[in-house]
Amino acid sequence: MSTEPQRAARAGSGPPPVPGCCAFYHEAVELIGRRWTGAIVAVLIDHGPLRFSELRQAVPGVSDRLLSERVRELETRGVVARTVEPGPPISVHYDVTPMGRELAPALRRLGEWARAWLA
Amino acid sequence: MSTEPQRAARAGSGPPPVPGCCAFYHEAVELIGRRWTGAIVAVLIDHGPLRFSELRQAVPGVSDRLLSERVRELETRGVVARTVEPGPPISVHYDVTPMGRELAPALRRLGEWARAWLA
Repeated sequence: MSTEPQRAARAGSGPPPVPGCCAFYHEAVELIGRRWTGAIVAVLIDHGPLRFSELRQAVPGVSDRLLSERVRELETRGVVARTVEPGPPISVHYDVTPMGRELAPALRRLGEWARAWLA
Repeated sequence: MSTEPQRAARAGSGPPPVPGCCAFYHEAVELIGRRWTGAIVAVLIDHGPLRFSELRQAVPGVSDRLLSERVRELETRGVVARTVEPGPPISVHYDVTPMGRELAPALRRLGEWARAWLA
């Protein structure tokens, strides 16, 4: 990396190739990139609304604690909604919001890529 | 959550709605979901090959250390390739591999979602 300035000078340098392209994108990638988050959203898109126990079964390997935490984050971000129907017994369901549902094409493409390249 | 077993029993329980859908998908989401990783791949898809200094300029806010680390991870996963052309001066470029390039549709959709919902 010692010759980096030389190389930059040689290339004529100039402005950065992508001026500020990435702010929202970063946020999106980090939102769905947290462990389990993308899977939770994907499962709810295809199978929601689900009870907590159904969601846990559908996302194998996640602990109750971590699942609650991630679902709460997604609620805070407006991606997942929690609906409480008064009982008895009380029934609590989780589903994607319209904002969450529109992640479907991105998640589908990512799944296709994963199947093609990571299988 | 104390009544979770009750609710599951009430629903007739049954098999998990999504049997093992998520293994590869998880891996993909976590690969591109690490801080900067998705942005690095997106920049290289649109503007690669790039020198390290150009890549750094294109991904604003990232430190040299973290950028090196992420790029090395992506090389290890086969998503990014590093090419050294013997000089003098030596020239080092980074670009996406075919595997990395095929992330383009997923990243594009994610970017569209981000612009629509996080802007």
